[in-house]
Amino acid sequence: RVNGDRLWDSLMDMAKIGPGVAGGNNRQTLTDEDAEGRALFQSWCEAAGMTMGVDQMGTMFATRPGTDPDALPVYVGSHLDTQPTGGKYDGVLGVLAALEVVRSMNDLGIKTKHPIVVTNWANEEGARFAPAMLASGVFAGMHTLDYAYSRKDPDGKTYGDELKRIGWLGEEEVGARKMHAYFEYHIEQGPILEAENKQIGVVTHCQGLWWLEFTLTGREAHTGSTPMNLRVNAGLAMGRILEMVQDVAMSEQPGAVGGVGQVFFSPNSRNVLPGKVVFTVDIRTPSQEKLDRMRAKIEAEAATICEALGVGCSVEAVGHFDPVTFDPTLVGRVRDAAERLGYSHMNIISGAGHDACWAARVAPSTMIMCPCVGGLSHNEAEEISKEWASAGCDVLLHAVLETAEV
Amino acid sequence: RVNGDRLWDSLMDMAKIGPGVAGGNNRQTLTDEDAEGRALFQSWCEAAGMTMGVDQMGTMFATRPGTDPDALPVYVGSHLDTQPTGGKYDGVLGVLAALEVVRSMNDLGIKTKHPIVVTNWANEEGARFAPAMLASGVFAGMHTLDYAYSRKDPDGKTYGDELKRIGWLGEEEVGARKMHAYFEYHIEQGPILEAENKQIGVVTHCQGLWWLEFTLTGREAHTGSTPMNLRVNAGLAMGRILEMVQDVAMSEQPGAVGGVGQVFFSPNSRNVLPGKVVFTVDIRTPSQEKLDRMRAKIEAEAATICEALGVGCSVEAVGHFDPVTFDPTLVGRVRDAAERLGYSHMNIISGAGHDACWAARVAPSTMIMCPCVGGLSHNEAEEISKEWASAGCDVLLHAVLETAEV
Ligand SMILES: NC(=O)NCCC(=O)O
Ligand SMILES: NC(=O)NCCC(=O)O
Repeated sequence: RVNGDRLWDSLMDMAKIGPGVAGGNNRQTLTDEDAEGRALFQSWCEAAGMTMGVDQMGTMFATRPGTDPDALPVYVGSHLDTQPTGGKYDGVLGVLAALEVVRSMNDLGIKTKHPIVVTNWANEEGARFAPAMLASGVFAGMHTLDYAYSRKDPDGKTYGDELKRIGWLGEEEVGARKMHAYFEYHIEQGPILEAENKQIGVVTHCQGLWWLEFTLTGREAHTGSTPMNLRVNAGLAMGRILEMVQDVAMSEQPGAVGGVGQVFFSPNSRNVLPGKVVFTVDIRTPSQEKLDRMRAKIEAEAATICEALGVGCSVEAVGHFDPVTFDPTLVGRVRDAAERLGYSHMNIISGAGHDACWAARVAPSTMIMCPCVGGLSHNEAEEISKEWASAGCDVLLHAVLETAEV
Repeated sequence: RVNGDRLWDSLMDMAKIGPGVAGGNNRQTLTDEDAEGRALFQSWCEAAGMTMGVDQMGTMFATRPGTDPDALPVYVGSHLDTQPTGGKYDGVLGVLAALEVVRSMNDLGIKTKHPIVVTNWANEEGARFAPAMLASGVFAGMHTLDYAYSRKDPDGKTYGDELKRIGWLGEEEVGARKMHAYFEYHIEQGPILEAENKQIGVVTHCQGLWWLEFTLTGREAHTGSTPMNLRVNAGLAMGRILEMVQDVAMSEQPGAVGGVGQVFFSPNSRNVLPGKVVFTVDIRTPSQEKLDRMRAKIEAEAATICEALGVGCSVEAVGHFDPVTFDPTLVGRVRDAAERLGYSHMNIISGAGHDACWAARVAPSTMIMCPCVGGLSHNEAEEISKEWASAGCDVLLHAVLETAEV
């Protein structure tokens, strides 16, 4: 078993970097806080005897050598970046639990045939630069490096420039590494494990996603002196699309979600009808068929809504992944480990996207989940218990050891 | 008649300060650009023989003396500040036409019994600091100076600090001046005069307004892993309220408008359901009874919408004026002047709020309007013709001369 106290202390130390305003964290990708978090993580990895590699996306790979020089490494990781008002565990738990796995192996003098690579993927959240899971997406060949470098934050700064600025542009070619397997441990970010009173989620699938960025074009006009019948009201069109997205998601229950987290009005003045409204619809479901149907319905109905109001409507897909099925052998090892350790467990489908979803395209991959209080995540109030954290880390240790071959 | 070319040249010179991105202007209140526009205006006033006074709100009063030392001045003006994506005429025409009235009187050697005070009211637009017509509101005793100084822009800077920063904090007590009358010439900002092919709008009333700033409180949560039935979705509530405001305005046709120009999502991340949504509903109608009914309906229905979603809802009125009836004597003088000068004219109700609405509470006041192309305003594409501009300025000259007594 791992050292649950040490894992927890590391979580709390990392949470001191980029504190939020309500007990959580604001350590967004490629900010100064991200750089500070990376430096702390690097110092921990080096203290645990690992050597750090960094690729051209800024992903960090800390290697603990194996005994067989020809054996491909087992990768274990997640991400240290957070939402603007994020929790202390989302992603961070997976990286620091991977580190704890190595620390425990050091304590116990365990050697493995396959090297272990503790991984901190860059820009998992996608909050500052869409899409989410950007670095793992490039790693898996889903995006080009040029595409990734050109992604802009809301201030217009690019990923490429910001990566250079914070000093974490590595030299390694992205995706050149070959993996024997990839494991990711993460908080559930949903309510199921807690409600079912299970310690471990054995993650069998991940639902697919579309991020549809709508740009609605209305006519900027005075809110007071423009008669109702002369308005080209992009804001009203957005309101109707939000309701429609809700209806589409509800009509596909159970097993589908849809909503909007980001809206920009322009010029965003109280007495100006917006000339432009940009917002992103987030839809997800584990069913490929439903995912396609929801996207088609939403785009068609949005076009109808906009047409009725004379509003221009264009849609760009700024994020996407198909539903994922994780590797049955690795899934089995996670389940067996939980069973062997005496932890209650259940199969679960990941509601959120994870770097494991991209890794699964290039290597056998799977995930382990622990519950979080009230299913709350992407919220500074995100909370887990030390016991939950270490139970999942124990399972991770066992599944990794079995895969890396002692 | 006035010198229409000179008026037009001054308009074009002022438009060079704080250029927009699409042919209009961005010369928002208390910005460096505002300061630059003020300095240019001051130099013009001084060249026309006037002396400048500035009050503690930053409103500029340029005086042309009268012949009777005991006669109260006739005030003529509007505002030089603009929307973030504003036009070249909204407000500016009224200030520079007032200047042109004085310049023409100088040319013609006309003296008046009552002094003429060319006025540039501060923060008319309310785009940077709500509410609109802030300085004239303090002047009329509708707001305290403390209230005005504490108004914040979206970056949290206060009116008081910014007024000092740009160097236009005057010493005059706000509202100490007494007015014999107040005239304001403005573009219509609506489509009626152009559609009816009239040169002059004789403004008899101004519709009343409420700015209702809603703060909706949802629960920040992951867009992917939070099931539909566990969402406390403030964004969806906002969407429904936008549609409801539209319905309320449509149910009060004709003679009522309602819409939303400003929306802030928080944390505004694509994969976070918003914990907070702040937006401002703008409703207007010339009928006091309708205005009260619309506000009550909107607040009640918004509460119902939010309750059904479990979303918290609070409302703050950040802007308000009751419908205004302008002074019948002055209105008559405007109509007579248009008639005498041979300009086509019609009675009109102002759809927008103006400093004249507050001035009307402390002095006999009225307005003159000219058409604008397509009724478009609060849009950089706002346009008028030189002929329209000078026709209204001729009417202004005549009505002012009659009131200031030659
Ligand atoms: N785990 C997580 O929150 N990832 C961010 C990408 C997503 O929106 O699912
Ligand atoms: N004239 C004008 O646009 N004033 C701004 C205040 C309002 O919204 O009516």
